[in-house]
Amino acid sequence: MNERISVTILFLLFWTLNVIADDGHTLWLRGQSIGPVKIICSKSSASINIAKQELEKSWHGTPGATLVLSIKSDSSIKGDGFKLGSGKIEAKTDLGILYGVYELLRRQQTGEKIIEEMSNPSYDLRLLDHWDNLNGTIERGYAGNSIFWRNGNDSLTVTEHDKKLWQEYARANASIGINGAVLNNVNSSPRMLDGKILKKVQAIADVLRPYGMKTYLAVNFSSPAVLGNLKMSDPFNAEVIEWWKKKVEEIYSLIPDFGGFLVKANSEGQPGPQDYSRTHADGANMMADALKPFGGIVMWRAFVYSPKEKDRAMQAFSEFIPLDGQFRDNVIIQVKNGPVDFQPREPFNPLFGAMKKTSVMPELQITQEYLGQSTHLVFLATMWEEFLQSETYQEGKGSTVARCTDGSIFRQKHTAIAGVSNIGLDTNWCGHHFAQANWYAFGRLAWNNSLTSKNIADEWIKLTFAQTPPDKIGSSIFSKNWTEKFLGPVKTMMLESREAAVNYMMPLGLHHIFAGDHHYGPGPWYAPNIRPDWTPPYYHQADTNGIGFDRTRTGSNAVGQYHEPLCSQFDDLKTCPEIYLLWFHHLPWDYKMKNRRILWDDLCYHYNAGLQQVREFQKVWDRIQPYIDSERFVAVQNKLRRQCLNAQVWNDGCLLYFQQFSRRPIPYDIGRPMNNLDDLIKSDMKRR
Amino acid sequence: MNERISVTILFLLFWTLNVIADDGHTLWLRGQSIGPVKIICSKSSASINIAKQELEKSWHGTPGATLVLSIKSDSSIKGDGFKLGSGKIEAKTDLGILYGVYELLRRQQTGEKIIEEMSNPSYDLRLLDHWDNLNGTIERGYAGNSIFWRNGNDSLTVTEHDKKLWQEYARANASIGINGAVLNNVNSSPRMLDGKILKKVQAIADVLRPYGMKTYLAVNFSSPAVLGNLKMSDPFNAEVIEWWKKKVEEIYSLIPDFGGFLVKANSEGQPGPQDYSRTHADGANMMADALKPFGGIVMWRAFVYSPKEKDRAMQAFSEFIPLDGQFRDNVIIQVKNGPVDFQPREPFNPLFGAMKKTSVMPELQITQEYLGQSTHLVFLATMWEEFLQSETYQEGKGSTVARCTDGSIFRQKHTAIAGVSNIGLDTNWCGHHFAQANWYAFGRLAWNNSLTSKNIADEWIKLTFAQTPPDKIGSSIFSKNWTEKFLGPVKTMMLESREAAVNYMMPLGLHHIFAGDHHYGPGPWYAPNIRPDWTPPYYHQADTNGIGFDRTRTGSNAVGQYHEPLCSQFDDLKTCPEIYLLWFHHLPWDYKMKNRRILWDDLCYHYNAGLQQVREFQKVWDRIQPYIDSERFVAVQNKLRRQCLNAQVWNDGCLLYFQQFSRRPIPYDIGRPMNNLDDLIKSDMKRR
Repeated sequence: MNERISVTILFLLFWTLNVIADDGHTLWLRGQSIGPVKIICSKSSASINIAKQELEKSWHGTPGATLVLSIKSDSSIKGDGFKLGSGKIEAKTDLGILYGVYELLRRQQTGEKIIEEMSNPSYDLRLLDHWDNLNGTIERGYAGNSIFWRNGNDSLTVTEHDKKLWQEYARANASIGINGAVLNNVNSSPRMLDGKILKKVQAIADVLRPYGMKTYLAVNFSSPAVLGNLKMSDPFNAEVIEWWKKKVEEIYSLIPDFGGFLVKANSEGQPGPQDYSRTHADGANMMADALKPFGGIVMWRAFVYSPKEKDRAMQAFSEFIPLDGQFRDNVIIQVKNGPVDFQPREPFNPLFGAMKKTSVMPELQITQEYLGQSTHLVFLATMWEEFLQSETYQEGKGSTVARCTDGSIFRQKHTAIAGVSNIGLDTNWCGHHFAQANWYAFGRLAWNNSLTSKNIADEWIKLTFAQTPPDKIGSSIFSKNWTEKFLGPVKTMMLESREAAVNYMMPLGLHHIFAGDHHYGPGPWYAPNIRPDWTPPYYHQADTNGIGFDRTRTGSNAVGQYHEPLCSQFDDLKTCPEIYLLWFHHLPWDYKMKNRRILWDDLCYHYNAGLQQVREFQKVWDRIQPYIDSERFVAVQNKLRRQCLNAQVWNDGCLLYFQQFSRRPIPYDIGRPMNNLDDLIKSDMKRR
Repeated sequence: MNERISVTILFLLFWTLNVIADDGHTLWLRGQSIGPVKIICSKSSASINIAKQELEKSWHGTPGATLVLSIKSDSSIKGDGFKLGSGKIEAKTDLGILYGVYELLRRQQTGEKIIEEMSNPSYDLRLLDHWDNLNGTIERGYAGNSIFWRNGNDSLTVTEHDKKLWQEYARANASIGINGAVLNNVNSSPRMLDGKILKKVQAIADVLRPYGMKTYLAVNFSSPAVLGNLKMSDPFNAEVIEWWKKKVEEIYSLIPDFGGFLVKANSEGQPGPQDYSRTHADGANMMADALKPFGGIVMWRAFVYSPKEKDRAMQAFSEFIPLDGQFRDNVIIQVKNGPVDFQPREPFNPLFGAMKKTSVMPELQITQEYLGQSTHLVFLATMWEEFLQSETYQEGKGSTVARCTDGSIFRQKHTAIAGVSNIGLDTNWCGHHFAQANWYAFGRLAWNNSLTSKNIADEWIKLTFAQTPPDKIGSSIFSKNWTEKFLGPVKTMMLESREAAVNYMMPLGLHHIFAGDHHYGPGPWYAPNIRPDWTPPYYHQADTNGIGFDRTRTGSNAVGQYHEPLCSQFDDLKTCPEIYLLWFHHLPWDYKMKNRRILWDDLCYHYNAGLQQVREFQKVWDRIQPYIDSERFVAVQNKLRRQCLNAQVWNDGCLLYFQQFSRRPIPYDIGRPMNNLDDLIKSDMKRR
């Protein structure tokens, strides 16, 4: 078998013009210097030294030019921001210099103009959340095991290989402005705070530090009882309070710049303060008090729901709004972008902008749990842009989620944003070469939440796929041929990819109709022996009368959690955006859409459109073969085939299932299903 | 699960206009009488009585009209032929009357004109070969177990249910002129001739007899040794000769009209006369001598090939031509339509017309071993028409295979044709509702080998799917709406279906590139541990230089087995029909086709065309939903989905495999593969 595969690869090598294989490990950091640069910098530090090395390694400006790096006190520069100018980079901090250098190099390599420009980060804390378990597995990880943890006798030893990988990881993050990492799963083992494990955390922190990456840990609320052998973990109990205080001291003795805790409490079976009739605020504040002396923070997740609730989408708002103002100033409430759970499309979570006296941070998911995992090509920046630019109206027009969370509107003590990492031990880090773009995009948006997905895609493609290093500065460093034949089509594909996934998975506001717990394939059908709010029929509510979740004022009244005029807009069929139609409304199958099609037909056309979009992506990709190395070409080609096969399954499974209720034919001008419903239900498609 | 399926069926019942479910068991025999008929017939016999019952049951002529059935000596009537006329049917035999009645009823129900007409059968013997094993399984059977044999304690008992089923079977055969059945597998167990089993054969024969169906058995050449405990089965041995004589006597004592033996000898491991250095003629003649006194015949198969042969397609010709003239006159050589093995498309077997002094009968395969089994909708009449009308040139122009085998050209003692049955215990007999059309078409062509597949399809659709019994005689008994919306599209689909299968399975003369032994999915790749002539690379010969089996004069010279001008025509690229191109030639990937495409591109377009044809069949079928009962609608719809999924696998597997050698892109204007080659090779698609 291997021999045949080798033959295949060999002939492809000769077939394509570009014969240099590329395993994708170097990410978007492949620029090689085209000449020397003279660096003038009066300061020396670990971070400054890295900045100098990067300049020497990847300088793409005029060979022999001079660059001045200077640390200045400038009130227009905020935090680790920087000022870019002709022949100079100014910053208030060493990290500001480092970020400025990466920005300069990126502009040189992408051919963007380098003008006098200020760049301040949108959020102070720009974090990756790793859902890595101590045994090395990763919850919702699709790119191999953890880069931090492993099973076995050597689980706590730190090798040179580990350190090299962590350094590469830190460098990649620094290059896009990410400045912190939660090293373990939010479903945290109490063992995480064990002294032996903290020693390894220390080793990781030491490698990440020069790149400006702070280390954070997700902690289990029951740690005092389980790890500390106390009788309980009640946040009002003196021994518990003392236990956390001592534990925090221990951590800071090892890691003086430790970032703080991330806590998932009273959520999906995790322990929390409510176990002792205390509130989320009681629990978070107790931890915050322990961390406060060291400058540490608590990120407390608002991802709560219960099987008793009639509408899961409403619970976070109901539980947290009454607590607004009760949290310590070093607590940040971490809120997922949508009210349910990282679905292909959700309206924004109504907590954004509504918690006015509390620091609130968005939690995005970079790993594609619900978006095809590492098999489907789905560029998430468009989704995040849609989310960040969502208008909340909480403080009048212009109260976008971005502005509600980045300190523009509310005087938050801390501004922060987190992304659930898609990184693992796979050579290319993310499983799918294009999944690297989501890591990249998260970092770029965390630094500047008004960037467009279009610009981010443009940058990333140039940095990741440009065939030869450009040899001069300016906008014409990429050939017309490459720009037209590669950059253009691939960018369009990326920008359409999320809408394609929404179309073939769950268009028109449908959500959470996945099969089983794997969240990969379709399963709108009933799943036995699972709590109702984990079964798709809870969400799609399809019956012979129609489909959709009634969240109007006469339904669950989830619309009531949104600020006017949004509440009325979502409530009223005339004004509700059709992308959220079935999120907010249960509608008859013959409901007339704005395009005058009936709902059933329009649903069919959406599914089919998604499938056809992926079929087109395949053509786009096959045509760019001459412009890319064969290794990445073949890898992406194979993934696109699987994505297509899966999109067909989505189309077939959903349409045939819903057809049982709609009792109408699939419009005759679109392709027929290729899979039978019974076969799909029987096999409940596992991830392939 | 069952509940859900029931719900599906229930709603479909109400959805369609036609609410009467139909399981397909009544085949093409669903006409119900629309009024009385007065039958005048002086004779009475079992067959005549059936004829009368059929008339009363299904009369579609003027109510109260008179029909005269008369047995007459008329030299223009041959065998069981008949004369149809206004108000009368004349024949020489009782069976002639029965066949005449079925023809009259068919014409009434299909609206065909009833004019004064003579109808004589093309072949005397029109047989079904059942590859049924004594344990009830069927080799290459895809419609359930055997209707004749079963495992278990009651394997030899004959129930009323058995007899009813055999009678329905006999009636269906009689209605299309089939007059004999080989009750067991050509890979025959010696146990078949055991006295106990012969008792059951007798019971079957008794049920079949009134319908004009004679009973035949496939026999194992080693029966004297294995069953009779003789030392050997040498056809020249006196004891062996005596054993067969006695066995034949025993059979005829039970079944006085027993038809004879079918023998697969020295073929695929079966024993035969060559085991004793005797020829096929020696073996066949020994059996023929035993059968001769009772009027029995021997059908001796020419399906021989060996792993040592450089070109399997040539062996039957090489072995049998030297024996021409050496066979007894009650021996018929049974020859498969093509020189290899029931492939989607083969040129005709060169033995047809070349064995001039021997009775030669075509063996067709009704069961779709190599044509999608009971999953794919493939109407085989077009293939058989192509075969029967093939020009052999053996006795000048007009020497078609049909005329070479039906006695028009050679004075064969016996004319015969056999079809390998596709019948099993499935309620609808054939697994796929449209597979019934192949049983029907075989019978119709056996009776009249100049019928067109178009007419056969037209008849079959009208008899099988017409919604309501027509209520008057004439060509306008079917509504314009039904004719345009149902009959037309379904007929077109049937007539295109075999070419579609050739396109997505093995176009341009490719053959035998199936995976494994199941002969269902694609497997052009190498299969380990199998004799070379059973592996696809033996047949497609693909390498970086090109593809195809060189059977030209400078290759294996299989072309030399064809009569001029065919030999030169096949040999010369300028004249070789492109449908047989890669059957006869190994050609470079950039060989220029007549449409000016290069071979590789044209191959891609053929595969894609086949896939698109099936996608279109799905649309055709979905559109006819209002005109058909829901049960058959859903069953065929489900099968078409699987066929599509499988056509995609064929397209992807073959193109991606051959692309390794062609090293050229799949033309960018056709759909991309959805399956990865490695996945397909790993799973070696089993029948689904």
